[in-house]
Amino acid sequence: MIDLKHCLESLRANTPLVHNITNYVTVNDCANILLACGGSPIMSDDKNDVEDITGICGGLNINIGTLNAATIESMFLAGKKANELGHPVLLDPVGAGASKLRSNAANELIKQIKFSVIRGNISEIKALAQGLSGTKGVDANEADAVNASNIDGVIAFAKDFSLATGAVIAITGATDIVTDGKRVCIISNGHPIMGKITGAGCMLSAMTCAYVVANQNDVFEAVCTSLIAMGIAGEIAYKRMGSLDGNSSFRNYLIDAVYNLTSEQLHESARYELR
Amino acid sequence: MIDLKHCLESLRANTPLVHNITNYVTVNDCANILLACGGSPIMSDDKNDVEDITGICGGLNINIGTLNAATIESMFLAGKKANELGHPVLLDPVGAGASKLRSNAANELIKQIKFSVIRGNISEIKALAQGLSGTKGVDANEADAVNASNIDGVIAFAKDFSLATGAVIAITGATDIVTDGKRVCIISNGHPIMGKITGAGCMLSAMTCAYVVANQNDVFEAVCTSLIAMGIAGEIAYKRMGSLDGNSSFRNYLIDAVYNLTSEQLHESARYELR
Amino acid sequence: MIDLKHCLESLRANTPLVHNITNYVTVNDCANILLACGGSPIMSDDKNDVEDITGICGGLNINIGTLNAATIESMFLAGKKANELGHPVLLDPVGAGASKLRSNAANELIKQIKFSVIRGNISEIKALAQGLSGTKGVDANEADAVNASNIDGVIAFAKDFSLATGAVIAITGATDIVTDGKRVCIISNGHPIMGKITGAGCMLSAMTCAYVVANQNDVFEAVCTSLIAMGIAGEIAYKRMGSLDGNSSFRNYLIDAVYNLTSEQLHESARYELR
Repeated sequence: MIDLKHCLESLRANTPLVHNITNYVTVNDCANILLACGGSPIMSDDKNDVEDITGICGGLNINIGTLNAATIESMFLAGKKANELGHPVLLDPVGAGASKLRSNAANELIKQIKFSVIRGNISEIKALAQGLSGTKGVDANEADAVNASNIDGVIAFAKDFSLATGAVIAITGATDIVTDGKRVCIISNGHPIMGKITGAGCMLSAMTCAYVVANQNDVFEAVCTSLIAMGIAGEIAYKRMGSLDGNSSFRNYLIDAVYNLTSEQLHESARYELR
Repeated sequence: MIDLKHCLESLRANTPLVHNITNYVTVNDCANILLACGGSPIMSDDKNDVEDITGICGGLNINIGTLNAATIESMFLAGKKANELGHPVLLDPVGAGASKLRSNAANELIKQIKFSVIRGNISEIKALAQGLSGTKGVDANEADAVNASNIDGVIAFAKDFSLATGAVIAITGATDIVTDGKRVCIISNGHPIMGKITGAGCMLSAMTCAYVVANQNDVFEAVCTSLIAMGIAGEIAYKRMGSLDGNSSFRNYLIDAVYNLTSEQLHESARYELR
Repeated sequence: MIDLKHCLESLRANTPLVHNITNYVTVNDCANILLACGGSPIMSDDKNDVEDITGICGGLNINIGTLNAATIESMFLAGKKANELGHPVLLDPVGAGASKLRSNAANELIKQIKFSVIRGNISEIKALAQGLSGTKGVDANEADAVNASNIDGVIAFAKDFSLATGAVIAITGATDIVTDGKRVCIISNGHPIMGKITGAGCMLSAMTCAYVVANQNDVFEAVCTSLIAMGIAGEIAYKRMGSLDGNSSFRNYLIDAVYNLTSEQLHESARYELR
């Protein structure tokens, strides 16, 4: 069993400061979910700023959602500095496979930076692992969706990729798969409406970085807890919706649910399987 | 009559992927309203990324709200690529007339890129058409407001500008005017509180691009439907407001209303006149 | 007594246009709170755009939250132009002390630009004043918190810094201190949950700039009124929260409360002391 309560309480007790180099689309949501979960956000992406900022933080969240020439350089500088300092670093390869720039940047980051966690949808993770292209924007290709008939193959693939990179791999979607190369966790929490807001993945990455910083003794459990927490928050938020509510209210309710999440809720609603 | 139901259902059925090169002020709202209306957003503005990204999308939304030297270059690259591919391209000339950079960028875009739609307030569209300056920031000059006494002149102006550019022109405000150079639609939906949130125009442009991608057989009707849909959503959102609600809740309710919009609501509440 | 009613009504009557060069994390909230309080926002940060834009505005809000090489240059250009035109300029030195880039940029801005107001937390203001480093990210160091035992020292420090810069200094936190070098106002409005959303400080700076533009005959009173208004809005928003609400709903309620704020609410709930 994953010690969900311990992971949550460590996060709340430590208020980890997370440096985010992230896209400008969902950055506000990332900041607010970091505060909601018990962390604290800093955003900084200038090459002359990122090393100082990552130095005062506990971890680094790199998200390539709206990367550009200037911020790519900053990702490498911050990543190397965080590696030197032994800080956890998370990669969210948004849109890897959808463009050469994104695929190349993500692949080069993996070569030069040691990541504690790589989190993406199946298309993005496959693009990283295979150097292949062809994702449907930043959402997962339907053909890639994890289901009962292909899950064993996806798990084997994720384990290989974890062993190759040394990172905990989190492939998220309707079913989430987390692995550190040995242990595997299959998570079924969440709700389809989470795909109807922008930033569910970005927020999850930012929060996961905070969980990992606060639970460095077991990164695998930290990542699993973060994914379970986000899924349960999505379920709570969906239940709260009234007939006039849509995706905008859902986004608020999701962050609110993370803010109010208790270890009892985690314990009662978690749906996962360890292999 | 505009086939509102058909335009809405085509959008929902096709989930068009829209590439946005847009400002960082309202970008999150643009992404969420694209999801709300039935589309899917991608944001990308680096010169080495935009051609690949626009290639996997159905249409391109160019918004100059916080343009800079780097993103202007990307607008041209993406616009030309989208033209090559025959994808609809929409221009939102935010603040044209308010600065030389904005006016020049918008005018040069119109020269080099074939736009399917140009949507702005009357000051911005006039600045584009006349190369004139003097708008009050990004809101319309009051002296420019469309009213009963000047509407015929505005329509004649919009028709000329449509014929000159080959684009459907949408001049939005309390009264919206849409024309493809021949047909004209005058729309009265909406509520003044829409001017009390940031991004009502940006969101409308993003959504309009999605409507056009999904209804390329009649761009004029697609644009009209989008404007009517946004206006009705504004009315629904306003009616939902309680005594403690202000512009922030209104913004959420607006996006929620787009998310929940039905063809029955469109049919019952549309207020427009075709000329 | 501060003429709160007059300051509020001047703002609502004048709809001051505020040019913001600000971070991409909280920029949407800054735009919406400017609209909520009675102002109007423009965002522009390209070096070829900022002078034209600041020329059509009433005031300039410079926030260094996600500064970069390009936007720093624009801050100087816009600041000098605003000084030439006699427009109020406000500095929010986000994260000063947390990195060399931020500290140096803020210090150089203070040397080259005449600011009407400098607003930050105690760590940031100390970093500016002392050229010292060591803040905890963008939040105030706990060791720096203003309390009964050190408030006289903080006031003396703030007065000195005000006299040295010619700016009204606003040090905000659980207790706010405002001074123009002679007069001092100690404000106790607000709620701790305001530290659980991103952007409370950024929003306050943007709104304060609007208050100052609309009340240039007494910048000190304008700043005090803005801080009191934000604190009261925070109290109103907190009271509105239900058991499922968290920081995301609080953010909406805060902006809503600014939108609906009356001079009666200001008068009844203000908690301040003039020295």
